[in-house]
Amino acid sequence: MLQTRVIPPAENAYPYPLLIKRLLLSGSRYEKTREIVYRDSVRYSYATFNERVARLANVLTAAGVKAGDTVAVMDWDSHRYLECMFAIPMLGAVLHTINIRLSPEQILYTMNHAEDRFVLVNCEFVPLYQGIASQLTTVEKTLLLTDTAEKSAALPNLVGEYEELLAAADPRYDFADFDENSVATTFYTTGTTGNPKGVYFTHRQLVLHTLSMATLLGSLDSIRLMGTDDVYMPITPMFHVHAWGVPYVATMLGVKQVYPGRYDPELLVKLWQKEKVTFSHCVPTILQMVMNAKAAQGVDFGGWKLIIGGSALTRTQYEAAKARGIQLTAAYGMSETCPMISCAHLNEELLAGSEDERTTYRIKAGVPVPLVEAAIMDDHGQFLPADGESQGELVLRAPWLTQGYFREPEKSAELWAGGWLHTGDVATIDGMGVIDIRDRIKDVIKTGGEWISSLELEDLISRHAAVREVAVVGMPDPQWGERPFALLVVRDGQALDAKGLKEHLKPFVEQGHLSKWAIPTQIALVTEIPKTSVGKLDKKRIRLDIAQWQASGSAFLSTL
Amino acid sequence: MLQTRVIPPAENAYPYPLLIKRLLLSGSRYEKTREIVYRDSVRYSYATFNERVARLANVLTAAGVKAGDTVAVMDWDSHRYLECMFAIPMLGAVLHTINIRLSPEQILYTMNHAEDRFVLVNCEFVPLYQGIASQLTTVEKTLLLTDTAEKSAALPNLVGEYEELLAAADPRYDFADFDENSVATTFYTTGTTGNPKGVYFTHRQLVLHTLSMATLLGSLDSIRLMGTDDVYMPITPMFHVHAWGVPYVATMLGVKQVYPGRYDPELLVKLWQKEKVTFSHCVPTILQMVMNAKAAQGVDFGGWKLIIGGSALTRTQYEAAKARGIQLTAAYGMSETCPMISCAHLNEELLAGSEDERTTYRIKAGVPVPLVEAAIMDDHGQFLPADGESQGELVLRAPWLTQGYFREPEKSAELWAGGWLHTGDVATIDGMGVIDIRDRIKDVIKTGGEWISSLELEDLISRHAAVREVAVVGMPDPQWGERPFALLVVRDGQALDAKGLKEHLKPFVEQGHLSKWAIPTQIALVTEIPKTSVGKLDKKRIRLDIAQWQASGSAFLSTL
Repeated sequence: MLQTRVIPPAENAYPYPLLIKRLLLSGSRYEKTREIVYRDSVRYSYATFNERVARLANVLTAAGVKAGDTVAVMDWDSHRYLECMFAIPMLGAVLHTINIRLSPEQILYTMNHAEDRFVLVNCEFVPLYQGIASQLTTVEKTLLLTDTAEKSAALPNLVGEYEELLAAADPRYDFADFDENSVATTFYTTGTTGNPKGVYFTHRQLVLHTLSMATLLGSLDSIRLMGTDDVYMPITPMFHVHAWGVPYVATMLGVKQVYPGRYDPELLVKLWQKEKVTFSHCVPTILQMVMNAKAAQGVDFGGWKLIIGGSALTRTQYEAAKARGIQLTAAYGMSETCPMISCAHLNEELLAGSEDERTTYRIKAGVPVPLVEAAIMDDHGQFLPADGESQGELVLRAPWLTQGYFREPEKSAELWAGGWLHTGDVATIDGMGVIDIRDRIKDVIKTGGEWISSLELEDLISRHAAVREVAVVGMPDPQWGERPFALLVVRDGQALDAKGLKEHLKPFVEQGHLSKWAIPTQIALVTEIPKTSVGKLDKKRIRLDIAQWQASGSAFLSTL
Repeated sequence: MLQTRVIPPAENAYPYPLLIKRLLLSGSRYEKTREIVYRDSVRYSYATFNERVARLANVLTAAGVKAGDTVAVMDWDSHRYLECMFAIPMLGAVLHTINIRLSPEQILYTMNHAEDRFVLVNCEFVPLYQGIASQLTTVEKTLLLTDTAEKSAALPNLVGEYEELLAAADPRYDFADFDENSVATTFYTTGTTGNPKGVYFTHRQLVLHTLSMATLLGSLDSIRLMGTDDVYMPITPMFHVHAWGVPYVATMLGVKQVYPGRYDPELLVKLWQKEKVTFSHCVPTILQMVMNAKAAQGVDFGGWKLIIGGSALTRTQYEAAKARGIQLTAAYGMSETCPMISCAHLNEELLAGSEDERTTYRIKAGVPVPLVEAAIMDDHGQFLPADGESQGELVLRAPWLTQGYFREPEKSAELWAGGWLHTGDVATIDGMGVIDIRDRIKDVIKTGGEWISSLELEDLISRHAAVREVAVVGMPDPQWGERPFALLVVRDGQALDAKGLKEHLKPFVEQGHLSKWAIPTQIALVTEIPKTSVGKLDKKRIRLDIAQWQASGSAFLSTL
């Protein structure tokens, strides 16, 4: 280590720890009249929000919550969730955002593994909670969240209903200082095998993530994606990586925020219209649902800026959104990364390019946001050149990456092999630093000694006019190792078979964009493609389904 | 201290220190074609900038610079200074930005006190350097900075000329990691008494300051003050609080930067026009000089966004700039605070107000930027209410405040009394959190038991059509303790005496805006008002001048 000059601070100098409470010092104090909206039922000012965070802290303290305790929330996106995102960590406690789309068994596992001591339960999840309550090993008390008039529920050790408790509490709380490396939040990510794994983020990490993301959203794009005069509505669940951390950014800036509860596409469109939403973020699937909603028909979505992540954004999706007035920008991140890593904003060179080129770069994973360092590595841990050609595993360094999986030392060491966080994604990085995700390592198709990107193949197939949705996986093949298999949903009144798909892909082979081995010899036509709890293609499930159909000779299949 | 949950990082997890080198990861890598411009003589891309930072690091290393060494720079604003702002701290060394407007004796004092081991000297300062060289106790080597063809100078222990050395150096350097609390920069601030005092900032502090300022500039104003497509030109010297830290922000974002060398108003206007500058910052005096430049006559400065700090911004100055197309926003900070503390951007409530009200709030010190906590304190260290009325000393907490004065334990303890940084400024804070600086504690005029703000009085006097510039100080008075005294510069062809000034101020007294004791009984008419090295009114010097004139009965004086 270099012998730099480190000067001990003056007597009495204040050592400023980076704590989540600091995010309330600017916008949320200055923009007192700005609104926070929940569906069509709640609307209050930032002044009220600040008071409610203090009330909640008093309620939780009275209920016995102490620093170091884990407090879990089971809720859809709401103003109450936002209050929990501040009050719980600000007490020095850990917020566990429960993924309520997991199976009851998985939820039970995560709650016991995280050692939840308190749980805030939305009334919709009371039956689910009752089903697992007897097997919860650490929970001591529960609180009820509800929009209904019914303020009680058959929850064990119920302290009371959130709104009634808040109304009776003191609207002031003097939040103490503590170590900025204290864990603030935790949640679980489901892998392809084994139990869900817990990632966790400290106060320091969340403050730095918030500042860097604010810089991205405010300064780095040719347009300002989110500034103080925007209206923000998340369409990525708050239980999923804190809605990508944007609620912390919006609150720091004092931006108007709109929380839509459960994601009902019709309501999303109505809220978008009524509240004049200008900035959101979501996965491609949800955007599709919103644009296809009845309420969306004939609506001009002009002025809506959306960041798309979670899955690759295809050119078709980009152009379909653009035709409706929506400006999409791709971004990349994952649960382990808090999540923001890169965003597809355009530099001076690309802005001067053709529209086609600009589109090409708007749908890539983009360039690292401030403070993020990205590289690609081969199987032996050697760095590969950033030449836009060399493919390797994307590895990362940033101030906000999970420092491990909670109580999983072996998986943690693997995640951080060689001092870089391993994403499990295969990517290229070009001379401008633009990351292009080619595939998940486990989703790359290895056929006849060649590697085929399932993502690339999905993109090309999705350009067929009859295709509404597509998933490509590699299936075991005795001769070739693996062969690509396509699962398709076709548009109403349209048809497609394996032969038709081959015809569609042939030109790409002839132009050298695609290996001839990449043409699927078998496809399946279905009405819906299985998705994970966060809306991604569930390729594990898809492979299982296909294997079953192949064994049973299902009518879904079409073979060359 | 609360017992929060702190989890030891996984084996191999990378502990990410906040280092200045990280600011080069985003914009400066992605915006490779963007330009950095120096006067009308140098123009290169960010790609070249990144290489030159590495070349400079190799040159300095070869010259013997090691981590922990202090490396001083004596230069006007230049691309080379920008390179030093990165390369020197990135080596783990400390950059001492010498205030070349101080007297040779003061410069000598600061260089010995800071323990400078290496000095980069602009050829213009060679005579100055030669005058103090024999008394420098720690300097080992010098480097020459020059735009001329003459590449040598009579500097003791000269390593060589900057450009020649860089041209011969390797354009790659692998910068090591080290403790984020390492000192990165230092410089000296001149108080009213005693020797200059050294403030210092760590890597962590500068990274956090950069991120918070990027958020301010990108997101918090109703307009984007500086984003990736702006063109930035500082008009606050780089030796003065790193040009307010904005070069770090601009570089992180990859913004086009224009460095004007020595501040020649005619050249500033020409550069502004030629390079299409959109964002700058300066003290009010320099703006005045720019707008009065010959080259500026008839120029429409539309699209120029300027942050004004260093001295209070008057309504007259604001409106004069507006009439020329310039959008001014006041900001507040000081050498001890890195410097950014607050900025006068407008919230939803004010944006909806009258133009007059918006102007009133655009010229105040404004609201704290993200992560800054501000309060006002009375003489006994008790907090005063934020009611817009109570006046007290402005005290601060933020992640980037100097942790003391270098090797001055007593002054450091005083600066940080009670765990808050004491600014020495008297202020009010209103219910929106808006800071209004009333005066320096030592410049408040105490007359007949009342406190009069010299700043307020200056503002009212400056509204008189004949007044070009004004400074008000309190002068000892046997009967009243102190009495206000005004030093005036009148516009060409105009005249004013003490009686005329009284007539001008009377309505403000009648409307209750001003105490009758605030009307100066004596004024002086001069051609120039003394300024400090950073362009502020030099009230210490002004008091001395006035005392001398009063003793000698100078013709400058006009008495009621």
